[in-house]
Amino acid sequence: MAHRVVIIGGGFGGLYAARALRGADVELTLVDRRNFHLFQPLLYQVATGELSPADVAFPLRAVLSSQRNARVLLSEVTDIDPVSREIFLDDAPPLGYDTLIVATGAKNHYFGNDQWAEYAPGLKSLEEATRIRHRILYAFEAAEKEPDADKRRAWLTFVVVGAGPTGVELAGALGEIANDTLRCDFRSINPEESRILLLDGSDRVLSPFLPTLSNSAEKSLIKLGVRAMLNVKVTGVDRYGVRVNSAAGEARIEARTVLWAAGVSAADFTRTLSNRTGAEIDRGGRVKVDAFCNVPGRPEIFVIGDACVFIGPDGKPLPGVAPTAMQQGAYAAKAIRKRLKGEAIEPFRYLDKGSLAVIGRASAVAQFFEGKFHFSGLFAWLLWLFVHLMYLVTFQNRLIVFIRWGFNYTTMNRGARLITGAIDKDVKPEDAISTEEHAEVRST
Amino acid sequence: MAHRVVIIGGGFGGLYAARALRGADVELTLVDRRNFHLFQPLLYQVATGELSPADVAFPLRAVLSSQRNARVLLSEVTDIDPVSREIFLDDAPPLGYDTLIVATGAKNHYFGNDQWAEYAPGLKSLEEATRIRHRILYAFEAAEKEPDADKRRAWLTFVVVGAGPTGVELAGALGEIANDTLRCDFRSINPEESRILLLDGSDRVLSPFLPTLSNSAEKSLIKLGVRAMLNVKVTGVDRYGVRVNSAAGEARIEARTVLWAAGVSAADFTRTLSNRTGAEIDRGGRVKVDAFCNVPGRPEIFVIGDACVFIGPDGKPLPGVAPTAMQQGAYAAKAIRKRLKGEAIEPFRYLDKGSLAVIGRASAVAQFFEGKFHFSGLFAWLLWLFVHLMYLVTFQNRLIVFIRWGFNYTTMNRGARLITGAIDKDVKPEDAISTEEHAEVRST
Repeated sequence: MAHRVVIIGGGFGGLYAARALRGADVELTLVDRRNFHLFQPLLYQVATGELSPADVAFPLRAVLSSQRNARVLLSEVTDIDPVSREIFLDDAPPLGYDTLIVATGAKNHYFGNDQWAEYAPGLKSLEEATRIRHRILYAFEAAEKEPDADKRRAWLTFVVVGAGPTGVELAGALGEIANDTLRCDFRSINPEESRILLLDGSDRVLSPFLPTLSNSAEKSLIKLGVRAMLNVKVTGVDRYGVRVNSAAGEARIEARTVLWAAGVSAADFTRTLSNRTGAEIDRGGRVKVDAFCNVPGRPEIFVIGDACVFIGPDGKPLPGVAPTAMQQGAYAAKAIRKRLKGEAIEPFRYLDKGSLAVIGRASAVAQFFEGKFHFSGLFAWLLWLFVHLMYLVTFQNRLIVFIRWGFNYTTMNRGARLITGAIDKDVKPEDAISTEEHAEVRST
Repeated sequence: MAHRVVIIGGGFGGLYAARALRGADVELTLVDRRNFHLFQPLLYQVATGELSPADVAFPLRAVLSSQRNARVLLSEVTDIDPVSREIFLDDAPPLGYDTLIVATGAKNHYFGNDQWAEYAPGLKSLEEATRIRHRILYAFEAAEKEPDADKRRAWLTFVVVGAGPTGVELAGALGEIANDTLRCDFRSINPEESRILLLDGSDRVLSPFLPTLSNSAEKSLIKLGVRAMLNVKVTGVDRYGVRVNSAAGEARIEARTVLWAAGVSAADFTRTLSNRTGAEIDRGGRVKVDAFCNVPGRPEIFVIGDACVFIGPDGKPLPGVAPTAMQQGAYAAKAIRKRLKGEAIEPFRYLDKGSLAVIGRASAVAQFFEGKFHFSGLFAWLLWLFVHLMYLVTFQNRLIVFIRWGFNYTTMNRGARLITGAIDKDVKPEDAISTEEHAEVRST
C-alpha cells in the first residue's frame, strides 16, 4: 500500500504541497471545506468591485484533476487521533494518514472582541469579500437617499482598521471608488466628499516596510483622499461607528462602514491539534513547529503557512505571507519524498524574495534583499501587477484579470460593483428609515 | 418643471426605456431593488459555472452615469397612488410621477405550490443562479463521499422541470458538466453515470419552436446524456425527489437536485397596481394593457415586458422574451417624447426577430419569419453566440465572456465552478451523514 498523505487545506501551503507531490509514490488526499483555492492577495479587489469571485478562485478538482495520485475531498476536519493516525470529518468516514500536512490557514482576529466581527468584517473568504463589497456600495446608495446631513455623513465615512498591506490596499481602493469610479454616478451626493480613515496603533502605515516606504505610501494615500490616523487604538465597534483611544484621549467616529484589517490568527483546527498532540501554540493559535516544520517529536505531522509559527535564523518568526506558505508546502512535499527513499532531510530554509504592497493606480512600494534595495511609484506598481498575474493559477484567469485591469485602468469603471447577497436581511431593515419615520413622510 | 418620468425596474424593458429617453426634456428616475441590470439570457451559464456573476450583470449607475436627465434609486416600490400620481418606497420618501413605466418583470411560478421553491429553485436572480451552481456541484461532492449506492444514485440524479428554452439550456449544460467538465475530477464516482431528466407536460421539448426543431433538439439532448420525459406532470417535490404523473400512472424519482424552469408569473407589484387602478390582470399576474402598452384609461401608466400581457394582431399574447420587453421599453420612451410635443401616438407593433435556443456545444436551433426559415446545429449555435455577445451591455463584458467561452470550448473546463455561499446552512447539515451514523463510523 502506498504511503498515505493527507493535506488539510487547499490554500497556498496545501496546494503547493499537493502539486509538489505529483508523480510521487503516495496516495494523496487533499481535504478542504471549500471546493476552490482562493488567491488571497487579490481578494481586496473582489471586495472593491474590481474583480469577480471566479477571477481569484480556482476549483481544486480542476487544478489536481490530472494528478492521478491525488484526490480531493470536500469536508470539514473536526478532530484528530495522532495515535491511530487518523483525522475525523464532519460528514464522511475518518481518514487514516501516514503523513499529515496541516495547512489550515488563518482567520480574522479581533483580539478578544469577537462581537465586533458583525460590524467590522474582515477579508479572509470570498463571502466576506462580497459582503464588504455590498457594504461599501450600499453605503453610497443609502447616502443618496438620506435627507439628514449627519446621517449622510456617517454613511459616507469609511473606517479601515489596520494599516498593514491589506488595510492600505482597501483604503486606497476606497479612495479610488469615491474619487473616480462613482464620481458621476449620483445626483444628490458627491462621492468625493467621503471620508476614508485608516487607523493603526503604530506610528506609520505599512510598518513591516522601511520607514521611507511608509512615508511615500502615506503620501500616495493622501492624494487618494485617505487620512491615516496613527497611534490610535480601537476600543469599540458598533453598527454606527468606532470608539478610538489616542494620546489626545477618547473619541468617537460615526461611520456606517468599518472594515477590519488589523490581524489574523490561526484557524481553529490548530487548537484541536495542540490538545491532542501537546504541541505548543502561540497567542494567535499558531503551532510552534521545529526546524523541519514538524510538530516537535512528530515527524509525520507538518504544520505550514499561517497555521504555524516558524522561528527564522534571526530569532524572529517568518512573516505570514503567501511565499512562506508556498515554500513550506514545497518543502514538506520534498521531505516526504526523501523520507520514502530513506534520505536525510535538511531543515527548512526560508528564502525572502522581497515584499510588495500596492496603494492604488500606478502606486506601490517594493523592497528586496532585506531592505537593501527598495523603490516606490509606477515601477513598483508594474512589478506588483506582473508578480500577481504570474502567480494566478491558470492562464485563463491571468488573461481575464489582465483585461479587467486594463479596462479599470483606462475607464476607472469597476465592472464587478454588484450589490449581491441578501440585501434585505443583511443591511437594509436596520438601516432603512424606520417605519414610523416612513409613515410620517407619507402622511405629509 | 420638467416632465417627471419614473421607471420601476432596470431589466430589459426599463433599461431600454431609460436609454431611449436620453436627451429628452424629462426628469427621469429609475427605481430598482438591485443596483445592476441582469442579462437574464446568460444566467443559466452562471448557474452552471461557465460565467461569473459580474459577466452578466451591469451596474445601473454606470450604464446611466453619463445620461444627465436620469437618476437611479436603489429601493423597493411598495405601493402606488394613481390619483396623486406617486409611488411609495420601502426606505425613501414617496416619488411623484407624470408618466410611470412599470417594468417589474417576472418571478418563478410554482402553480400554487410555493413550498416547492425551497427544493426546486428557479433561475431568475443572480443569487438563485449561484444557489443552483452550489447545488449542482455539491451533489457530485456528496456522491463522492456517499458509501450507500442508492443514496449515491439520488445525488447523481438531476431533474429539470420544464423543457422550454431555459430548461433545455440547463439540462444541456448539466450533460456537459457530467460528461466533459468533471470527467476526470473524481476518484470514487464516475460523473458520466449521472442521470439527467428533463420533464415536461407537453409532448415535445421547446414547444414554442417548430416540431422539426424540437426533434433535433431532443436528439442533441440524448447525445449529452439527457433523457426527456414528456407528457408528465409534476405532482410533488421534496428534498429527496419528485413525484410525477403520466399515462403510465404515478411514479417517484429519487433526485437530490431538482431545478425549476416550468413557468414564471409577473412580479408582485402588478397586483398592487391592479388593486389601485382596477387594471385587469391574467392568472400569471400580468396586467392586460391596451394597444399603447397603457393601463386602459390611464395613458400616463405604461406596463411593459413580463409585467404585462399584450395581445398581438393574431389574437395571441406576445412571448415573454427579452426582445418584447426591449421593444416595448423603446416604444414607451418614444410615446412620451411624442406626447410632450403634442404629436399623435401609433399603437405598439411587435417585430418578431426570430427565436434561438441553445442546447450545448455547437448545438442550437433557430427559426425566423414566423418559422418560414429555420435551421439547427453549428450555424445556429454560432448565431446564438454572436447575438448574445452583441446584446451584452458593455464592451468589457463582451470581451470577457468571449474569452471565457473560448476557454470553455477548448478545455471543457468551467472556471467559475465555485461552491460559494452558506455551504453550512444551505445544504450540508440536512444532507450530511447524521451525527449518529457518524458516531457509529467513528466507533468502529
